[in-house]
Amino acid sequence: MTAFQSPVSLQQPAFSLTKVAQQTRQAARSLASLSTPVKNQAIEAMAQALAAAEAEILAANATDCESALASHLAQPLYDRLKLDAVKLRAAIAGVRNVAQLPDPVGQVQIHRQLDQGLVLKRITCPLGVLGVIFESRPDAVMQIASLAVKSGNGVILKGGKEAVRSCRALVAAIQQGLEQVGLDSAAVQLLTTREETRALLALDEYVDLIIPRGSNAFVRYVQDNTRIPVLGHAEGICHLYVDAAADVEKGVAIALDAKVGYPSACNAIETLLVHRAIAPQFLPTAAAALQQEQVDLRGDAATQTFLPDIIPASESDWATEYSARILAIKVVDSLEAAIDHINTYGSRHTEAIITEDEAAAASFMDRVNAAGVYHNCSTRFADGCRYGFGAEVGISTQTMPPRGPVGLEGLVTYKYQLVGDGHIVATYSGTQAKPFQHRDLL
Amino acid sequence: MTAFQSPVSLQQPAFSLTKVAQQTRQAARSLASLSTPVKNQAIEAMAQALAAAEAEILAANATDCESALASHLAQPLYDRLKLDAVKLRAAIAGVRNVAQLPDPVGQVQIHRQLDQGLVLKRITCPLGVLGVIFESRPDAVMQIASLAVKSGNGVILKGGKEAVRSCRALVAAIQQGLEQVGLDSAAVQLLTTREETRALLALDEYVDLIIPRGSNAFVRYVQDNTRIPVLGHAEGICHLYVDAAADVEKGVAIALDAKVGYPSACNAIETLLVHRAIAPQFLPTAAAALQQEQVDLRGDAATQTFLPDIIPASESDWATEYSARILAIKVVDSLEAAIDHINTYGSRHTEAIITEDEAAAASFMDRVNAAGVYHNCSTRFADGCRYGFGAEVGISTQTMPPRGPVGLEGLVTYKYQLVGDGHIVATYSGTQAKPFQHRDLL
Repeated sequence: MTAFQSPVSLQQPAFSLTKVAQQTRQAARSLASLSTPVKNQAIEAMAQALAAAEAEILAANATDCESALASHLAQPLYDRLKLDAVKLRAAIAGVRNVAQLPDPVGQVQIHRQLDQGLVLKRITCPLGVLGVIFESRPDAVMQIASLAVKSGNGVILKGGKEAVRSCRALVAAIQQGLEQVGLDSAAVQLLTTREETRALLALDEYVDLIIPRGSNAFVRYVQDNTRIPVLGHAEGICHLYVDAAADVEKGVAIALDAKVGYPSACNAIETLLVHRAIAPQFLPTAAAALQQEQVDLRGDAATQTFLPDIIPASESDWATEYSARILAIKVVDSLEAAIDHINTYGSRHTEAIITEDEAAAASFMDRVNAAGVYHNCSTRFADGCRYGFGAEVGISTQTMPPRGPVGLEGLVTYKYQLVGDGHIVATYSGTQAKPFQHRDLL
Repeated sequence: MTAFQSPVSLQQPAFSLTKVAQQTRQAARSLASLSTPVKNQAIEAMAQALAAAEAEILAANATDCESALASHLAQPLYDRLKLDAVKLRAAIAGVRNVAQLPDPVGQVQIHRQLDQGLVLKRITCPLGVLGVIFESRPDAVMQIASLAVKSGNGVILKGGKEAVRSCRALVAAIQQGLEQVGLDSAAVQLLTTREETRALLALDEYVDLIIPRGSNAFVRYVQDNTRIPVLGHAEGICHLYVDAAADVEKGVAIALDAKVGYPSACNAIETLLVHRAIAPQFLPTAAAALQQEQVDLRGDAATQTFLPDIIPASESDWATEYSARILAIKVVDSLEAAIDHINTYGSRHTEAIITEDEAAAASFMDRVNAAGVYHNCSTRFADGCRYGFGAEVGISTQTMPPRGPVGLEGLVTYKYQLVGDGHIVATYSGTQAKPFQHRDLL
């Protein structure tokens, strides 16, 4: 099979997504029992197959890029779509890096003797089958497939339509790699149409977790149209609160870093909250620095008294993720008001306070409801690699765990193993009940 | 306010569920920051107020019971509804027991120096507001309210309609207890109508977790009608597999315990799988023991060759939770076939193997997909108290954590706290990037 043939024969009329999902589940059951060295060999084989298919992959990507140019794809999207040898080799190095990460499967979380000869263990295990729906960025295929194999999960991938030829070439190589070490290539499969995405969301019997990446609207669509658990971030409306007791220099540097470093990142700030007592000192300096970096400022009435040349901010500004060089500014009367504003408008992603007052910082970090609460540092540290997780499957703004940057541990669950020697519950019930020991062995 | 007045004025025309939920969220924000001793004092105050209101509570329950008798409520449901002084005092002792449990909030899960002066902590924190919908059993009110306060969460309760007067009296006492220690009584609120339940499911802005208890159909209805995460168990179809290398005596004793001890428990077995090689030895002994306990047996064709007097089992039997003294029996040709049957028909609750063959046991426990995988012991050990969690909010058959018996840890999430001293991401980016240390301090 060459890289250009569809690995799952999507064009055939008899195509059944249920069958694809069943095959992936079957393959995943085998993956789940593999030892760490075998999984790492599979990942190495995937890397080698990808390297060997470099010419096919780059040719497929070139065709995708030509189509994208012809249909006037926006520049940032085109940049994400485009693969070259350097970017491909970096992505393959990323695949090999996943082999180096600790195995998230088989971790013993609880080890407890319930009674003599009756021992409970809670051990991490794979989820089963992941459904990952992502943008038109071919590098995501390699990253997600390697994380899935490392965590013992099967994965059904659906990339953006602009990247369809690139994704096919990449998945074909990955499947070849799996086959070369004797594994079932159905562990990694590719969907290519929007209809299949919709069908995937209905397969709660075969798919254990949906990871949607893309626009907020898309993530919400997925949440509203599936019974399968969703690991998604709805949006990143992050705030920087400059407290009355802030060090102005730190505040200005962090505001710049958090807004300008990568304005379309979900961990970039959208709103700056400034305590009234420090506004006269902070706002003119911060505004000058931000405007020098072409940031378009908008502020509430109090802010405009310090920065008369900026445009007014309206209610909708507080609830907007600009993903651009735009920053809303609001003057607040107290730490309390800042926390209230954040808990009302924030998207529970990452929120920061700048202050030299330890009590104010502690109160902020305790009372702000978000996956990340930061003191005197940039919101842009919210990232799996920066946290030391090695790789990241996404950043969750849900309240339930896994929350915030999610590494391999977000791709596993656990099971309770109980081993006895004929133990029955009747022994521990009723008036003659034997008491449990509940002695931790870990 | 006496115990008989509705604590949230549900009868008023201006009633707004959104308002109730907002009040509970507000109260929950205060609860979240309380120290362990203050939360324990609140739980003690709840216990005292409940004890002081014993007469009102028992009178309210007597009225509920009269109505239930008049409308011919089934006996097991009536037994759950009925409170007497002994049962009430035991439940109040259960409330005090929750105060003794370790605080699930404030646990440090990760403590890592990312770089000099830049320190990351992952700390457990409350979810916010729980919505708990439960059967007509008044004791659940006391258990859930105490678990919610201990975990720093607000809770909106909705009990079965037969228990409405009892629930009002209990919640009024609990709210008095909270007020007596200066806490906002809106932290624990009660709904009483089905319309409110439906409205509650739509309040994803104010409610963080829905815990439905009751029939399978009801749990599925909840899952299909809310965007809020659901902690529910769909059903308990548990199996006991008696392997070729089983000790027959252990197998018979465990089959009896797992079926007869409490047939309507979700951790009771519904199907017995028996390896063909041991069927001639095992089945007649086991059947005699089970039939002596009035268990109605049904079997596949192979089983009927050993037990000719039992009725045939059909396909639908393998997928049924009887919750009664009924047991389906199937003869299988291999461990493989047993695992396949369980992974096809099981509800991922708790599954057990009886064998003296360690390799068979290991394979079973590795490959069966369920929250609990047991070797030579009864499925009925699947229970938070038996696992040593002190109390249980439910048993989750979902694949994602929390899975299996869920104690207080299922009512908390976590947040990442990052403390720096002016740290910005630019320092760690680009060609001059400073490397992270990622040094664990825990």
